[in-house]
Amino acid sequence: MIHLVFFHSFEKVWFHRSVFLSTGTWVTFGSQISDEMAESVMTIAYENGVNLFDTAEVYASGRAEITLGNIIKKKGWRFSDSLTFAFMILRAETERGLSRKHIIEGLRGSLSRLQLDYVDIVFANRNDVNSPMEEVVRAMTFVINQGMAMYWGTSRWSAMEIMEAYSVARQFNLIPPVCEQAEYHYFQRDKVEVQLPELYHKIGVGAMTWSPLACGLITGKYSDGVPDCSRAAIKGYQWLKERVFSEEGRRQLAKIKELHLVADRLGCTAAQLAIGECLCTRANDLVTYIILFVLHNLLKLCRLEQARHRKCL
Amino acid sequence: MIHLVFFHSFEKVWFHRSVFLSTGTWVTFGSQISDEMAESVMTIAYENGVNLFDTAEVYASGRAEITLGNIIKKKGWRFSDSLTFAFMILRAETERGLSRKHIIEGLRGSLSRLQLDYVDIVFANRNDVNSPMEEVVRAMTFVINQGMAMYWGTSRWSAMEIMEAYSVARQFNLIPPVCEQAEYHYFQRDKVEVQLPELYHKIGVGAMTWSPLACGLITGKYSDGVPDCSRAAIKGYQWLKERVFSEEGRRQLAKIKELHLVADRLGCTAAQLAIGECLCTRANDLVTYIILFVLHNLLKLCRLEQARHRKCL
Amino acid sequence: MIHLVFFHSFEKVWFHRSVFLSTGTWVTFGSQISDEMAESVMTIAYENGVNLFDTAEVYASGRAEITLGNIIKKKGWRFSDSLTFAFMILRAETERGLSRKHIIEGLRGSLSRLQLDYVDIVFANRNDVNSPMEEVVRAMTFVINQGMAMYWGTSRWSAMEIMEAYSVARQFNLIPPVCEQAEYHYFQRDKVEVQLPELYHKIGVGAMTWSPLACGLITGKYSDGVPDCSRAAIKGYQWLKERVFSEEGRRQLAKIKELHLVADRLGCTAAQLAIGECLCTRANDLVTYIILFVLHNLLKLCRLEQARHRKCL
Amino acid sequence: MIHLVFFHSFEKVWFHRSVFLSTGTWVTFGSQISDEMAESVMTIAYENGVNLFDTAEVYASGRAEITLGNIIKKKGWRFSDSLTFAFMILRAETERGLSRKHIIEGLRGSLSRLQLDYVDIVFANRNDVNSPMEEVVRAMTFVINQGMAMYWGTSRWSAMEIMEAYSVARQFNLIPPVCEQAEYHYFQRDKVEVQLPELYHKIGVGAMTWSPLACGLITGKYSDGVPDCSRAAIKGYQWLKERVFSEEGRRQLAKIKELHLVADRLGCTAAQLAIGECLCTRANDLVTYIILFVLHNLLKLCRLEQARHRKCL
Repeated sequence: MIHLVFFHSFEKVWFHRSVFLSTGTWVTFGSQISDEMAESVMTIAYENGVNLFDTAEVYASGRAEITLGNIIKKKGWRFSDSLTFAFMILRAETERGLSRKHIIEGLRGSLSRLQLDYVDIVFANRNDVNSPMEEVVRAMTFVINQGMAMYWGTSRWSAMEIMEAYSVARQFNLIPPVCEQAEYHYFQRDKVEVQLPELYHKIGVGAMTWSPLACGLITGKYSDGVPDCSRAAIKGYQWLKERVFSEEGRRQLAKIKELHLVADRLGCTAAQLAIGECLCTRANDLVTYIILFVLHNLLKLCRLEQARHRKCL
Repeated sequence: MIHLVFFHSFEKVWFHRSVFLSTGTWVTFGSQISDEMAESVMTIAYENGVNLFDTAEVYASGRAEITLGNIIKKKGWRFSDSLTFAFMILRAETERGLSRKHIIEGLRGSLSRLQLDYVDIVFANRNDVNSPMEEVVRAMTFVINQGMAMYWGTSRWSAMEIMEAYSVARQFNLIPPVCEQAEYHYFQRDKVEVQLPELYHKIGVGAMTWSPLACGLITGKYSDGVPDCSRAAIKGYQWLKERVFSEEGRRQLAKIKELHLVADRLGCTAAQLAIGECLCTRANDLVTYIILFVLHNLLKLCRLEQARHRKCL
Repeated sequence: MIHLVFFHSFEKVWFHRSVFLSTGTWVTFGSQISDEMAESVMTIAYENGVNLFDTAEVYASGRAEITLGNIIKKKGWRFSDSLTFAFMILRAETERGLSRKHIIEGLRGSLSRLQLDYVDIVFANRNDVNSPMEEVVRAMTFVINQGMAMYWGTSRWSAMEIMEAYSVARQFNLIPPVCEQAEYHYFQRDKVEVQLPELYHKIGVGAMTWSPLACGLITGKYSDGVPDCSRAAIKGYQWLKERVFSEEGRRQLAKIKELHLVADRLGCTAAQLAIGECLCTRANDLVTYIILFVLHNLLKLCRLEQARHRKCL
Repeated sequence: MIHLVFFHSFEKVWFHRSVFLSTGTWVTFGSQISDEMAESVMTIAYENGVNLFDTAEVYASGRAEITLGNIIKKKGWRFSDSLTFAFMILRAETERGLSRKHIIEGLRGSLSRLQLDYVDIVFANRNDVNSPMEEVVRAMTFVINQGMAMYWGTSRWSAMEIMEAYSVARQFNLIPPVCEQAEYHYFQRDKVEVQLPELYHKIGVGAMTWSPLACGLITGKYSDGVPDCSRAAIKGYQWLKERVFSEEGRRQLAKIKELHLVADRLGCTAAQLAIGECLCTRANDLVTYIILFVLHNLLKLCRLEQARHRKCL
């Protein structure tokens, strides 16, 4: 019943020139896996150097946050250690938009479910055309000034929208966003490789990428159809199934087959290759030892994933 | 003993392009009706989609707030639900003016009576010539930064005064008002239909209208004099009685008779027609389904009103 | 043992175009009179419309604040009533200067002794050349933003210093002072009658005047030397004795004799005349009924003073 | 077992034109001396007018702060007295850099270990090239606005970096630093005597100097090699031993011999001479009586040091 969702949520963050390896909780915690499984996944991640956890109020209607909060409390994990630079990420992902009321009440609710006083970063998910940008940036500055978050970022915003937030922050002397969460894998490269570097150099906004395995496609598990134990077979993931069988999906699966040949020659899985490549992007901006450190842990996690994968197949 | 005050307080709010249907507590809660009646009126409103409640510290010298607070606590209503966009409105209506001291102490007192940590909007009632505008806007920004309110608005301010508040907010980088409460019905149209749209397009200030039935005149209940069970017959409402019998009042009652003929032809009451028309103003700026949703609930409430109306007559 | 100190502390405040009648606690509370006497003086003042109390941390090394705090708590007086516009004044008078540390810690100490959460106005006593003006204005803005005070004012600052504070507040978008405390009586008129009106019209800074009886000289009690029961005879008030017997003091006493003749003709005491004249200054800026209200209470207090005066003589 | 570390940490502060005599806790508290010894050293310092204590989270991994906090609590020392202008200094010295997260969490941890609500000054130790200056200054302004510190300063920053912090504070209307901590003794004079005075006159940043005895070299204890009971003989202080025996170290020891001849002629120790000279730098900017007061206490402390010195030798 493990759906290889673990790797799905590996993320790489350039943030003040540091690299974080993160694990997320989307579609998994509080719904598709048990609390015990969630705890052991979290523990392996934490003990292997994963120093960033991503969650959101809409994940399983808040249950992902409750699960994560319980695990952190039980384990006594600290996110302000002097040795590891650990981050607790929270995305104020909401269908309710980005009004001041929703940002503040949403974050308060999340902190309450997580049993935390603050998170390190709060993300504004998808720009909300109904909320004036001034209101969004003022609300984000408010939650930071209230001590509910250290930084704020954007998630799936266009480069223009990020620049508008920056401009509004400058106009009213508010706190600008530090990071954009963007999808990044073989089939989605333009934003992270072209637009975000430009933003980074102009206004210092970092990038945090998600979905390195393209919803699992790159693992090859959908190459021969949709297995029963895969996520695309779950009720409510019809959109994923449709994506797999679309013309675009078939083109991608063909390319993934070629990728597997390359991976075989390199002696690793295609998933390892894909994640490794995500980690190396713009590596010239980053200190080398962090990447090695990350890769070292990555290999452990890959072995874990393989073991799990086998159990499922 | 029900004086059709319920409909009096229906209000329509354009606020960030959303429509709210609201119910108020003026002249009713804590004075003209019992707490049980207040609770059942509130319950019907809340359950039928009314998502905005308006109260003020001067209503029945604070007793309206105590009644409202007790009902909300007893019912466990939440105003930060993810599905309904509910607002708790509070007007810092005061004869004491708008000094920093009065705004802050007034709001603290209201929150204490309402047993709430914050309200969604606090309104500055009537501009106070003795308080410098900078003091008013700084105080409103203070209560928002302290978390006592999400937004602030104005009530019965002139367009020039609203623009001055906006200008002061821009000059000192404070938070500008988001909304003006204005009287709006057949006999009072200029401000809402001409001035506020201009303000809305220039500085984004929305409109919240009150008194859609012109103090009950439009229902026709005063067309044949002042009935014993109407509000104009209550002690302390001499001003309303005088208004009904004034030359202007007689002219209005004549027009209301014509309106009743139109309503009869449309198969609804004049009150329904008047409220419906308020709701459709500037509908082109609003998303259609919200209006339908509102109208749907409106009909239920209209039926309720009719039932009550009959009991009184 | 009553030293007519009561009238000494009558003060008149122009503040947002309102008039306050105040009573102070200098040299009296916690030192020269018993707590019981302090309580009855306070009670008479409060019940007769005195709506402003002035105290400072240096008065009797903080004991004046403790006495005042105990009386307020015992009596249950509220300073945020909706009918009377009552103010609790606190002067952060300190020999320690106006560094951020001293302003904040000084006010915290005063609030603790007064058993209050905040005062209405905190005054910066005497400008401190060693503290940069930016630090003073930032600290005052901090205590207001923390909710420890509603407003801040200056005490015995020059017009240039007040203008500098205003300029710094404008430069860094901080909160400007609202009021200057200045000595004002027959022999000290220039600042209140010439300089402060100019400041008031240019930047809205009001005036609060103190010492209407010129340290008691105007009552005539020092006209025939220093009586045993007067303040100038108390240990530690040598400076007052010296002032009485100085050349300037003798000139003033001569003028006070003439004043007593005028008062006799008007059928009141010289003290009443002096206070009344303070109250009428710039009366054209003030609403008339407030002055009458104040004078009405003033007469009661004058009668009280006369009764006490007789007991002493 | 006393390693003359006491004098090492004597510091002189120009801060708002006041002189402070301070004692530090580096390399001593929580590691090289017992808690009882720490308490008696602190008590002698406090009772002799030392009004500034310097500590940092990295000193003995936080144990220095715990020791200091326990002593302050046990002794009931107050740092907001009206007579003595006492300061509690905290340096947010950290190897972790100056990100907002580290500054805030670091200071929170220190306050918790010190059992204090706030410190007077928090210092940003060494500029961190990975943290944007805007983030550093915003974080420092945040901790001051939250009431966790009164002021902030820099430690071992270049003049250009201090000016950048000042410029960023001006650009975004944040709070500028008030003080730079710099090494200052016979062999390190340029920054304190040339650069900092220029900064002080241009932007008002004061200087707090440390290491007046050049890590103990000036006492002459290393003139005949490294004694067993000196700090350079302790494990982990190899760098100090190397410095003593370096070519530069030998040149300095030669000059120190000449200094001892001068001190002998003046009838004091070289240490007294060195500290006295530190205290007199730019004395023309300072009020004389403070210096005398400081020197008076200094002599007592020097006698104490001599007594201790003898026990060790």
